[in-house]
Amino acid sequence: MTIQEIRHESEQLADLSRDINIRFAYPNSERIYLQGSRPDLRVPLRQIYQDDTLTDRGREENPPIPVYDTGGAYGDPSAAIDLKQGLPPLRQAWLDERGDTDILPELSSRYGRERAADPKTAHLRFKHITQPRRAKAGKNVTQMHYARQGIITPEMEFVALRERMKLDELCRDERYRKLLRQHEGQSFGARLPTHPDQITPEFVRQEIAAGRAIIPANINHPELEPMIIGRNFRVKINGNLGNSAVTSSLTEEVEKMVWSLRWGTDTVMDLSTGKHIHETREWIIRNAPVPIGTVPIYQALEKTGGIAEDLTWELFRDTLIEQAEQGVDYFTIHAGVLLRYVPLTANRLTGIVSRGGSIMAKWCLAHHQENFLYTHFDEICEIMKAYDVSFSLGDGLRPGCIADANDEAQFSELRTLGELTAKAWRHDVQVMIEGPGHVPLQRIRANMDEELSHCFEAPFYTLGPLVTDIAPGYDHITSGIGAANIGWYGTAMLCYVTPKEHLGLPDKEDVRTGIITYKLAAHAADLAKGWPGAQLRDNALSKARFEFRWRDQFRLSLDPERAESFHDATLPAEGAKTAHFCSMCGPKFCSMKITQEVRDYAAAQGMAEKAVEFVKNGAEIYR
Amino acid sequence: MTIQEIRHESEQLADLSRDINIRFAYPNSERIYLQGSRPDLRVPLRQIYQDDTLTDRGREENPPIPVYDTGGAYGDPSAAIDLKQGLPPLRQAWLDERGDTDILPELSSRYGRERAADPKTAHLRFKHITQPRRAKAGKNVTQMHYARQGIITPEMEFVALRERMKLDELCRDERYRKLLRQHEGQSFGARLPTHPDQITPEFVRQEIAAGRAIIPANINHPELEPMIIGRNFRVKINGNLGNSAVTSSLTEEVEKMVWSLRWGTDTVMDLSTGKHIHETREWIIRNAPVPIGTVPIYQALEKTGGIAEDLTWELFRDTLIEQAEQGVDYFTIHAGVLLRYVPLTANRLTGIVSRGGSIMAKWCLAHHQENFLYTHFDEICEIMKAYDVSFSLGDGLRPGCIADANDEAQFSELRTLGELTAKAWRHDVQVMIEGPGHVPLQRIRANMDEELSHCFEAPFYTLGPLVTDIAPGYDHITSGIGAANIGWYGTAMLCYVTPKEHLGLPDKEDVRTGIITYKLAAHAADLAKGWPGAQLRDNALSKARFEFRWRDQFRLSLDPERAESFHDATLPAEGAKTAHFCSMCGPKFCSMKITQEVRDYAAAQGMAEKAVEFVKNGAEIYR
Repeated sequence: MTIQEIRHESEQLADLSRDINIRFAYPNSERIYLQGSRPDLRVPLRQIYQDDTLTDRGREENPPIPVYDTGGAYGDPSAAIDLKQGLPPLRQAWLDERGDTDILPELSSRYGRERAADPKTAHLRFKHITQPRRAKAGKNVTQMHYARQGIITPEMEFVALRERMKLDELCRDERYRKLLRQHEGQSFGARLPTHPDQITPEFVRQEIAAGRAIIPANINHPELEPMIIGRNFRVKINGNLGNSAVTSSLTEEVEKMVWSLRWGTDTVMDLSTGKHIHETREWIIRNAPVPIGTVPIYQALEKTGGIAEDLTWELFRDTLIEQAEQGVDYFTIHAGVLLRYVPLTANRLTGIVSRGGSIMAKWCLAHHQENFLYTHFDEICEIMKAYDVSFSLGDGLRPGCIADANDEAQFSELRTLGELTAKAWRHDVQVMIEGPGHVPLQRIRANMDEELSHCFEAPFYTLGPLVTDIAPGYDHITSGIGAANIGWYGTAMLCYVTPKEHLGLPDKEDVRTGIITYKLAAHAADLAKGWPGAQLRDNALSKARFEFRWRDQFRLSLDPERAESFHDATLPAEGAKTAHFCSMCGPKFCSMKITQEVRDYAAAQGMAEKAVEFVKNGAEIYR
Repeated sequence: MTIQEIRHESEQLADLSRDINIRFAYPNSERIYLQGSRPDLRVPLRQIYQDDTLTDRGREENPPIPVYDTGGAYGDPSAAIDLKQGLPPLRQAWLDERGDTDILPELSSRYGRERAADPKTAHLRFKHITQPRRAKAGKNVTQMHYARQGIITPEMEFVALRERMKLDELCRDERYRKLLRQHEGQSFGARLPTHPDQITPEFVRQEIAAGRAIIPANINHPELEPMIIGRNFRVKINGNLGNSAVTSSLTEEVEKMVWSLRWGTDTVMDLSTGKHIHETREWIIRNAPVPIGTVPIYQALEKTGGIAEDLTWELFRDTLIEQAEQGVDYFTIHAGVLLRYVPLTANRLTGIVSRGGSIMAKWCLAHHQENFLYTHFDEICEIMKAYDVSFSLGDGLRPGCIADANDEAQFSELRTLGELTAKAWRHDVQVMIEGPGHVPLQRIRANMDEELSHCFEAPFYTLGPLVTDIAPGYDHITSGIGAANIGWYGTAMLCYVTPKEHLGLPDKEDVRTGIITYKLAAHAADLAKGWPGAQLRDNALSKARFEFRWRDQFRLSLDPERAESFHDATLPAEGAKTAHFCSMCGPKFCSMKITQEVRDYAAAQGMAEKAVEFVKNGAEIYR
């Protein structure tokens, strides 16, 4: 990098900082905070304000609709953002007060120390790296450990408020009465709260203690706004970042992350495999209000120059510590790829498609030894609990096509992940389980059932699954179908897929499309499970649609800009947004308008009630 | 229209004719025909040719993959197309030979005759309108009538060959052995064939006779290539056309139809509501190789100047005959919107959203009389059977939002549609049933179950359903999720939804996206039900993907152009299409490449078989 390039990058970051939260604001929305039991516990929420409904009888108020907000400080127009400084360390006091961690005088990993001292990467380095924190000797600082001791941490209270989204209050507010009606859910044996009042810090604690949910929250990521991943909470989504083959600039990576947050990703996985992943990761974590996940074996492999056989436990261990001290919140670890399972993939149509899985398979075969992640699993747990990094136990043998779904290789590995879950839980380390991939519709349910039974209801985290292989270019959709279904069946987090899947690297528009697709799939799953209050936003939007409140319809959408631009493509005039008709039918011929007449007529005649009665009594003709 | 504009339109049509089938060809594909029992029975099929696989042991042939082809003559590069002339009347000899129809000396409908003589629309008129055909007095010319008499029509043989897609032959071809493997389906009590050999003309006849399937094929649409809609066949999709509020030119409408066929729509509904719908419809039908459906009440309403109360049975009847003699293959008729059901919608969140439903509701209330479509249903059946127009019994009370799903209004109407199905079947008239709309995931299954039981397994034809209301701009996806599920449960045809749904009129790109979304949803349903051979294309594409045959991956895709352009956005070089790596991982770090090494290693050691055995025997360590 030339001096000029460095200066340019620095200016870009400053530019981005200046207006990032202004540019990313949503229309007619306000960032509010739910106050917790202590002053520094403030949970962000977005409220969407609506226009009044104008009727013959006058104005009718449409109350504001709260929506879950993943934007962090970027979603708060009053926040001063400085990407070079990083986000404020919200959780620092919580960590300090627990008094079970030490601030280390220097980084524990050899690689981390080397990079910190490397003059060649000085220009890329984040300037305000704080000293790392680690559990005191003999201490266990995981959320699961606290939960099992009956301790409700601020993190648990935070997620309780966040999940509840003040719906408990709204249930007691007459304005929301009709809007809060919803269909009964079907939850396949999940223990969902049935009323917002039940979403309490104690409920969160119990779910964490039982291993049914996790709060990925590394003690070295104090900037994090805690969130929860579990079958009995809102379904979450993950978006991926990664500079891969094409090198992108720091600014680009940070901007891509903020862009993902804006559209609503709940966690971000940094899957970079380039040269400066250590430095890029620091920038990302310091600016991330959501949990960051990684696949440490990718970086370990980089360190061997790409030679899988040269991987060693020591090298991997150093990488885990390096990343844990940067603040990574969850690690994908492919410890279930056992030597004896590898040949089970030989007759598959597409073999091993997981990168981590194929690296470990290659290592196992080359050394004719058991996977070192499996044999060193207890030592990995020791690291995880010293920083509270959560496991995302990787499905290295997941199917890469419809044909290979649900085969012996896949389910053998899943059973081993169950064994490792039990082991991790003996260390009070938080665990989620990764799942496929490519599965035809009728075989998705079996994936969920097997996971629940073999992995003791640890949260399931799946990639799609894609329900057919024949639509490259549309795999956000083929996988969104599978994702909505498996979310309904009980999957806690859905890893997004973009339209470029299998074809190329996603650009910003692909990321947006991928995230919105997964937001709608996760929401469809929440509705189907019967999450309390899930239908509020649907009801509000549909009421707005029926009443021709076009602007409210846009505002309540997952993607207001796209909704508005699609509307404007046909009827761009500003007047059309308040008109009592739309482009589909025109002003004269409008079913919604006719319906309003039907409704007025029925009301005038008192017919609605009578008709229900008559039909129920089997009356033949309405008189 | 000025003379200049007319001349311009005419030139456009000529231009479009000239190269329409060349422009719309698919890469590396060939149009072939399956020869039936008579020379004029030739069933179109597209074959996709693949490259060889290059291995250390030499070349391995990848056989051509047959795919269902809706393109008609437009998919045959050797066909001479003249849009002003219309397609050749393939079925004419079949109709003549049956000897049960008369060629009428003039149009039977008053409106048809008026338009034919109207000098103001002369310039828009299709030049080669043939004289209409009608059943001889006392004759019934429906496919259901023939089927129930044990007659296998050429139409039935055609669809048997079309559905079977020569998979019976491929099952006996060693090259396809591995590619034809597929997962067991779950079909919820459907009577699907379990082997391609079972897809016979006699099987088709039985399904038609039982009312479980229909072949929409008006005797005045001899250009039609017959297709079948039924739960025990491939799931079909419908795409909509319509010039609505914005007037589009004839050329544009015809081009949009051909565009839809190219992407694979199985039927087209012409939902136009403009001034020249009679003339436009003629152009569309004469150039349509697929069934055309309409909602005749739309045109009837136009004739009243948009005043629902002024609709009369006589006006509607004339419209039915007008359209039947043009060749419309199925009519949406909202005969289940009964007067007593209308007030059931008054307390809904979004009332009545079906245009046809709201027109009929308004009429019923204004006159305080029962729906004239219901009271004149037998007379409608008399018209249907004289031309073999199929019923698509409209769901005028379908829910317009999640909140209103599965309510009393909806299911009351559905039960009435069942009653009407039984009545239509007494006339041997073919019937399908329209379904919703907006339904949360957990309540979709009930829609299918209710339909099967109340409507005696008549084919179900649904719009989506959308599984959430919060994603305008992405409703092709919210509805594609519902569509894949309800298709799996047994729905026979899925009406597409474009990204512009609820917002504006779809442009060509929206139509493409909507159709491909529904093609993949229908295919996911075929896989899930276990339709024989459905997985062939998935397997072929995945094998191509695994072997880095990029071009074959594109060719086998539902949308080869998009797949290729997405690939090229990252790696545009021509060499990258034959490279053994892709942009996601780069040349060094490729899971597929590593897998190939694992496979070679395992093969060399004879490990695959041993490992399966060891794992099955519960061996602890592979030696």
